[in-house]
Amino acid sequence: MIKKLFAEFFGTFWLVFGGCGSAIFAAGVPDIGIGLVGVALAFGLTVLTMAYAVGHISGGHFNPAVSVGLVAGGRFPAKDLIPYIVAQCIGAIIAAGCLYVILNGAGATSFTKPGDFASNFYAEAVYNGKAFSMGAAFLTEFLLTAFFLIVIMGATDRWANGKFAGIAIGLALTLIHLISIPITNTSVNPARSLSQAVFVGGLAMSQLWLFWAAPILGGVVGGLVYKFLLQKDQNEETA
Amino acid sequence: MIKKLFAEFFGTFWLVFGGCGSAIFAAGVPDIGIGLVGVALAFGLTVLTMAYAVGHISGGHFNPAVSVGLVAGGRFPAKDLIPYIVAQCIGAIIAAGCLYVILNGAGATSFTKPGDFASNFYAEAVYNGKAFSMGAAFLTEFLLTAFFLIVIMGATDRWANGKFAGIAIGLALTLIHLISIPITNTSVNPARSLSQAVFVGGLAMSQLWLFWAAPILGGVVGGLVYKFLLQKDQNEETA
Amino acid sequence: MIKKLFAEFFGTFWLVFGGCGSAIFAAGVPDIGIGLVGVALAFGLTVLTMAYAVGHISGGHFNPAVSVGLVAGGRFPAKDLIPYIVAQCIGAIIAAGCLYVILNGAGATSFTKPGDFASNFYAEAVYNGKAFSMGAAFLTEFLLTAFFLIVIMGATDRWANGKFAGIAIGLALTLIHLISIPITNTSVNPARSLSQAVFVGGLAMSQLWLFWAAPILGGVVGGLVYKFLLQKDQNEETA
Amino acid sequence: MIKKLFAEFFGTFWLVFGGCGSAIFAAGVPDIGIGLVGVALAFGLTVLTMAYAVGHISGGHFNPAVSVGLVAGGRFPAKDLIPYIVAQCIGAIIAAGCLYVILNGAGATSFTKPGDFASNFYAEAVYNGKAFSMGAAFLTEFLLTAFFLIVIMGATDRWANGKFAGIAIGLALTLIHLISIPITNTSVNPARSLSQAVFVGGLAMSQLWLFWAAPILGGVVGGLVYKFLLQKDQNEETA
Repeated sequence: MIKKLFAEFFGTFWLVFGGCGSAIFAAGVPDIGIGLVGVALAFGLTVLTMAYAVGHISGGHFNPAVSVGLVAGGRFPAKDLIPYIVAQCIGAIIAAGCLYVILNGAGATSFTKPGDFASNFYAEAVYNGKAFSMGAAFLTEFLLTAFFLIVIMGATDRWANGKFAGIAIGLALTLIHLISIPITNTSVNPARSLSQAVFVGGLAMSQLWLFWAAPILGGVVGGLVYKFLLQKDQNEETA
Repeated sequence: MIKKLFAEFFGTFWLVFGGCGSAIFAAGVPDIGIGLVGVALAFGLTVLTMAYAVGHISGGHFNPAVSVGLVAGGRFPAKDLIPYIVAQCIGAIIAAGCLYVILNGAGATSFTKPGDFASNFYAEAVYNGKAFSMGAAFLTEFLLTAFFLIVIMGATDRWANGKFAGIAIGLALTLIHLISIPITNTSVNPARSLSQAVFVGGLAMSQLWLFWAAPILGGVVGGLVYKFLLQKDQNEETA
Repeated sequence: MIKKLFAEFFGTFWLVFGGCGSAIFAAGVPDIGIGLVGVALAFGLTVLTMAYAVGHISGGHFNPAVSVGLVAGGRFPAKDLIPYIVAQCIGAIIAAGCLYVILNGAGATSFTKPGDFASNFYAEAVYNGKAFSMGAAFLTEFLLTAFFLIVIMGATDRWANGKFAGIAIGLALTLIHLISIPITNTSVNPARSLSQAVFVGGLAMSQLWLFWAAPILGGVVGGLVYKFLLQKDQNEETA
Repeated sequence: MIKKLFAEFFGTFWLVFGGCGSAIFAAGVPDIGIGLVGVALAFGLTVLTMAYAVGHISGGHFNPAVSVGLVAGGRFPAKDLIPYIVAQCIGAIIAAGCLYVILNGAGATSFTKPGDFASNFYAEAVYNGKAFSMGAAFLTEFLLTAFFLIVIMGATDRWANGKFAGIAIGLALTLIHLISIPITNTSVNPARSLSQAVFVGGLAMSQLWLFWAAPILGGVVGGLVYKFLLQKDQNEETA
């Protein structure tokens, strides 16, 4: 079990360090910056790379909403849920701390606007002068996490080409970011949102509830949808 | 059969929600927007991810032109065609409805120009000041769908590395969008075009015929080309 | 044999239609165009997708320099070389014709500058105000094709994970374009260069010799390098 | 052994020629340049392509920090370390020489600013007007190389889907560049840094120590972390 928790710790560290780090350091460089497409790619690649690196150890969740969703879908034992989530949150927060130290190496930093560092937000005009309402943000985070779980449940199904799951799941996270960064900065991962809010405080902390509630609810619904509407019955033959 | 239809429903929902959603929310953000390359990537990743998630359930068409083309190519029974297409269209329209709700969460929306929402068009100057004629648009949609079917038929051939089909087919859709978004906003998928036209109305509805006719004709030709010019004879030995 | 030639025909059609087409229609759209990174991705995906679609039929060369290089490397019989190259060139030219027809659907077109359509060039300042000399262009095309053959020979070696060859080879072509579009518009493929020169004429035709000589010489050297410096001896045991 | 050294030579040549070459020739082209996202993709694809091409010959390190880290992790014999590193450095330097020759084909070149050619740097404002301190640069290079080794060790573990290692490791290098080009131009590879410093001299040479020390230290720590905290005990059953 301890090796599983280390795997979740390092995997979630990598997700925050790589995904949020690319947003913080490289997205906004003028003319040649990686932009939102680069950030979307980075988040996806953190999961793709760690899925192949440590997925065989812990299953490669790196996300409390995924762990909860897999319990709902019958793929993960409820008794391991709390230790997994704790390991994920610790890894995420320490990664954010490293990003904070590096960022301060380029001059003292203070966070004043919604979305600073790589914090999530709703009902704030951060990109393109558009503010999406709390309801729109909740629906977005809910739907994206639900489909994320459908992809995870399906790609790791015993009838699927399971060896490709790391590619499908990682690139699903890239796709999710391609849609929704302008709406909420994209969470679908409570540990990722927590890690940024801890350092940003203020608005990021007061809005944090949505980035736990919507992804976890979405994860549960996604897990149940796959289990009851899509998955073959257990008493059918294995291929 | 009901699980196959759910798979097509959720897969086509994801295609429209992810592909059209990335275009609507993230393509045009100034300076750091994902641009057409991000939209092309998003469309491809919807298919790649769902192919590995539910492809083992329904075959993973998510597109009426693909279903029709596979009937022409002898890979899909004609009797299942109508239920598949209905499931695909319902999934696409509900996804477009969700996009519409989220978009209105940032302020009431009305669609006035060709290409608004993520609707398809022809003979209209939407990008770069260039309008491509109806004939050029038809030829483009026809050729791209025909080659899409050649890739699908080939990558799932019994002699091919079938486990990689999800990657090849998904990225073929990315490639198709890299070529043709400036010409028609890229359809190659009648359900995707329908879903946008339902909400946009007007021009999008009156031009919708082309985005059923050209992709379906292309799909049929592509299926036949692979079957008669490329596929090994059935009486050859399996490898 | 006829099915192999159809496979090379359709594969090379797709390479030119997709790669050159993305450059012609989508690269230069203001603000949201796919740029050179999108074109590089498109070229690579044409090969990746067709490698999985028809690679099991013809080997998936789609490029005279690859066919010649594989003869040098001992992987392809010299007697099939001419038919393969003819099929590739016909496919490339017909694809360019389709691109020409579509382009004219947006207004009558004439080509006046180096690099127009998607033609190759040397010693001309097309990008960034920089003209790379004939020698620099030759060295670039030579080296890139040589390494392309090393990747092809290696990824399809009997000791390698051959099923991944389509990914490695396709993305190698993406990489090649990421380096060298600003130098020569990137050829590494005589059929691709021929197809554009036929429609552009003038400078593109008079410089065409380099885009046959350098890639073919590079292909031969790459094939020989892999065969003699890297490949295991034939009398070693197969794994 | 000689074939292994040739594999490392050609692989590291490709890494520098492709990764640094894309940065030098294509990143900064106005409007349509590949930008940092293209450079990040190029570096990753050099490793992905060569991992499938020659990984079965030499293991596919192409990086002294990887070779040292694999010794620490118990995956590579210490006695082969020096020959591997020498082959890597020679390949990198010759590749940089070819880039230099091609660059001079567009007019005589002199390097005057930090980051010129594709050299690494610290405590210099190259991108975005921000200079990251030596400490921030060291921490960044250290952490990224440590996680690079965790991915490499994990993806090639006997319990992992080893055939996907080339994808995971190559795209990990892409991810690493997405985060850190604005901080140090990204090294995580002493041979890559050396190759550029040899031609740039001055500041690049005087700062070179960090791009040997931090990646090698990171590589060792990453190898040890995987071995002791994540890897299953040797006396457990193989799956």
